[in-house]
Amino acid sequence: MLKRIDINCDMGESFGVYKLGRDPEVMDYISSANIACGWHAGDPMVMEQTVRMAKERGVAVGAHPGYPDLLGFGRRRMDLSLAEIEAYLLYQMGALAAFAKAHGLPLQHVKAHGALGNLAFVDLEASKAIARAAVRFDKNIIFVALAGTVMVQAAKEVGVRCVEEVYADRVYNPDGTLQSRKISGSVIHDPEKAARQALMIVREGYVIAHNGTKVPVRPETLCVHGDTPSAISILQKINDDLKKASISVTPMGR
Amino acid sequence: MLKRIDINCDMGESFGVYKLGRDPEVMDYISSANIACGWHAGDPMVMEQTVRMAKERGVAVGAHPGYPDLLGFGRRRMDLSLAEIEAYLLYQMGALAAFAKAHGLPLQHVKAHGALGNLAFVDLEASKAIARAAVRFDKNIIFVALAGTVMVQAAKEVGVRCVEEVYADRVYNPDGTLQSRKISGSVIHDPEKAARQALMIVREGYVIAHNGTKVPVRPETLCVHGDTPSAISILQKINDDLKKASISVTPMGR
Amino acid sequence: MLKRIDINCDMGESFGVYKLGRDPEVMDYISSANIACGWHAGDPMVMEQTVRMAKERGVAVGAHPGYPDLLGFGRRRMDLSLAEIEAYLLYQMGALAAFAKAHGLPLQHVKAHGALGNLAFVDLEASKAIARAAVRFDKNIIFVALAGTVMVQAAKEVGVRCVEEVYADRVYNPDGTLQSRKISGSVIHDPEKAARQALMIVREGYVIAHNGTKVPVRPETLCVHGDTPSAISILQKINDDLKKASISVTPMGR
Amino acid sequence: MLKRIDINCDMGESFGVYKLGRDPEVMDYISSANIACGWHAGDPMVMEQTVRMAKERGVAVGAHPGYPDLLGFGRRRMDLSLAEIEAYLLYQMGALAAFAKAHGLPLQHVKAHGALGNLAFVDLEASKAIARAAVRFDKNIIFVALAGTVMVQAAKEVGVRCVEEVYADRVYNPDGTLQSRKISGSVIHDPEKAARQALMIVREGYVIAHNGTKVPVRPETLCVHGDTPSAISILQKINDDLKKASISVTPMGR
Repeated sequence: MLKRIDINCDMGESFGVYKLGRDPEVMDYISSANIACGWHAGDPMVMEQTVRMAKERGVAVGAHPGYPDLLGFGRRRMDLSLAEIEAYLLYQMGALAAFAKAHGLPLQHVKAHGALGNLAFVDLEASKAIARAAVRFDKNIIFVALAGTVMVQAAKEVGVRCVEEVYADRVYNPDGTLQSRKISGSVIHDPEKAARQALMIVREGYVIAHNGTKVPVRPETLCVHGDTPSAISILQKINDDLKKASISVTPMGR
Repeated sequence: MLKRIDINCDMGESFGVYKLGRDPEVMDYISSANIACGWHAGDPMVMEQTVRMAKERGVAVGAHPGYPDLLGFGRRRMDLSLAEIEAYLLYQMGALAAFAKAHGLPLQHVKAHGALGNLAFVDLEASKAIARAAVRFDKNIIFVALAGTVMVQAAKEVGVRCVEEVYADRVYNPDGTLQSRKISGSVIHDPEKAARQALMIVREGYVIAHNGTKVPVRPETLCVHGDTPSAISILQKINDDLKKASISVTPMGR
Repeated sequence: MLKRIDINCDMGESFGVYKLGRDPEVMDYISSANIACGWHAGDPMVMEQTVRMAKERGVAVGAHPGYPDLLGFGRRRMDLSLAEIEAYLLYQMGALAAFAKAHGLPLQHVKAHGALGNLAFVDLEASKAIARAAVRFDKNIIFVALAGTVMVQAAKEVGVRCVEEVYADRVYNPDGTLQSRKISGSVIHDPEKAARQALMIVREGYVIAHNGTKVPVRPETLCVHGDTPSAISILQKINDDLKKASISVTPMGR
Repeated sequence: MLKRIDINCDMGESFGVYKLGRDPEVMDYISSANIACGWHAGDPMVMEQTVRMAKERGVAVGAHPGYPDLLGFGRRRMDLSLAEIEAYLLYQMGALAAFAKAHGLPLQHVKAHGALGNLAFVDLEASKAIARAAVRFDKNIIFVALAGTVMVQAAKEVGVRCVEEVYADRVYNPDGTLQSRKISGSVIHDPEKAARQALMIVREGYVIAHNGTKVPVRPETLCVHGDTPSAISILQKINDDLKKASISVTPMGR
């Protein structure tokens, strides 16, 4: 049984006058922040503020790079070459790392956003391009991989430090993949249910798929959405239950 | 008399399919490259290639950040707050530094581009915002200041390492400021003339202003434009003449 | 005494996933919508939806063009040439007009946004560049000018149809200019007060400046902010009071 | 045998300080200009200049809209919804039409650029979204369809005026599709060969595919690339040969 687990959440997705998310509230319940890098969301002022807030709360910071598509919030697949993916990731990691450096923090991890992340789940070469960017940037940086996807293999092949993540608030298929969001009910909004799944993952080492199958998982980080209506309730409940179980919420890199 | 001098030049200003400048040729005659960071010019693929080329030629790399105005090539003044200037500079330095890191190079210096640079010449608070970004990013980074401007004072007040630059191919006013580009003939296109000015700066420690006044200068770096028709001829001639005078062309940071 | 008046309000300022304003509510209380054109705010999907909604509610549509600065919401002055202002305005008017055409509506008016609008208040040449773009686009389009500014003169010189606007919810100086927003209390948030000012403008033909001076005004359109906390209350109250006074709220172009 | 034919070419692809293409030279040899609309290339100043030049030379203007991807020049497929395609096309057509209106010209046609064009060749629903945008913008506008693709069917289903185009400088497959650019030699650079293909298309009504098959075609417009090294020679030769054959080069819309 794990004695500690990380909780990661997407942060810093506001842009200029446009506000998105409830970062100041969410930040109290997570240990790692995936911070947007100004391409699909975020801007330098938002990055500065988000990193400052993370530091104040003892939350570790990571880059959350995406496609160059603010208009589509990085959720629309773009046909990039592998060299482009690698260069775009380096750019975004570097941009965020500047704010981390300015605040005396390391860049703990990198986790691809949106449609780029979805591509990485299923495309080994794209995953490797992301992993190459990560390891070229910093050989100690953590590449966050969705458990059960080719991302784990990509990390191995490229030789980057890898941490596997499992979703506390998503429904799983029996083969360990995420049930498509297109299927109604695939995102868990009930805090009790999400917390139960989180605890089962951390304490028992499995999730129960939608058909009842027990799927073994061994994550080092739990992902929770920060932008759903029940996000704060879910995060509170998970934190409370982990505390009762004497499992500490600790950044993945420590 | 100086035994060494740096030559810096703007590089990496292409964008996507759009090509600008003659980087592969210019790179042979300079010791420091001011590389665009994707805001007023440049993109991640161009940054990757430019840093790679700089490394191959032994040229040190620096960030050349500008306004978020690709359409205006960063040459149009924008009314930013000081906090915005600082954050925008951090972002761009970090983005370029990622490519430097990936190629095993330090980020040697930062030099503001275009209208932001022009603002820094005359606005102490804007200069200090740039200097603050520099020192927050890396206490050893060099802040390139135009000799005789408030940038030098800004560097002192902020406590950032500062290197003063003088232009080899610009006409000077008797007070040490640059003659406005709006006055015809303010950019020197004659290689002989530019090289003579360069040598006088380095060997004698002064430039002759347009009215004949000797203006004392003690730069550690010479700036030469890379995008004028005679750029290569000017750079060759300056390099040749410096070599004859046993003055080595060496990156400012070494 | 006027029997009719127009009420205009900025609309369509959302962008991608980012939502701004309360357009569906505001739209019920106005007769002219100033719709963002995708540069400082807005995007084609938002423009399509906003024009559709305007048509359904019988609201006339106008272009609300701004600087190419989404990051700054068009609120930061940019040093553009007059030719650039003219071309940028044509571009944005045309883009919005396409959606108007697609819905069978004319483009009734154009009103510059943010820092570009502020420039137009005080810079005759910039105002004329905007007016030229308007009249080149359509000789029947209405150029909305802030009453008492050089915009009115610009319209005359260029020969564009002009409608003067007065703010229902802004405090005025004795010389008829707007009291700077930097002075606390310069935006009126009290519905009673705003409605009283609106009625006085329409029925009596003057506003009372902050020092009690009566400033004569003869607007054809009232501007009300749609993004303040009390916007809906202000708009409701103004509409109610105008109705009681048998003054109809009618698009400026009819 | 045709007595007239249109020649269309992509124009106005410069952006800010970045220059692309040889528009002033090419403009003398074409009758219809496909003008970039500021998304994948072009900007308002370039659009203004390009439309003015077209008017001076008697060349008809059309919109050449593309993906919102300046960095990739619109050559990278993006997964847009049909509603997005339709709205993005309306926006870009409108933007260009403003310059046409300002110069007293109608917007003659619309032709999708790059990866969006490639999608339209093979995806009926995407083609129909483009055609819907066209007909909603103006029921008389011409939708340029690559002969032999689903675009022709899309035009019919949507009810938009359609003109089929054939490439003078591309090699054809026996089934009437274009040989992929990935196959070496698929773009014809020899002026003699291109002109021969052009004449055969116009006079005889067929192209000879790479395997010798005669493919019947009945285009109303010939597309020629303006950005290849031999573009001007090809255009000159085609113009000369058409003239000798007493076939006039006339805008498709006249």
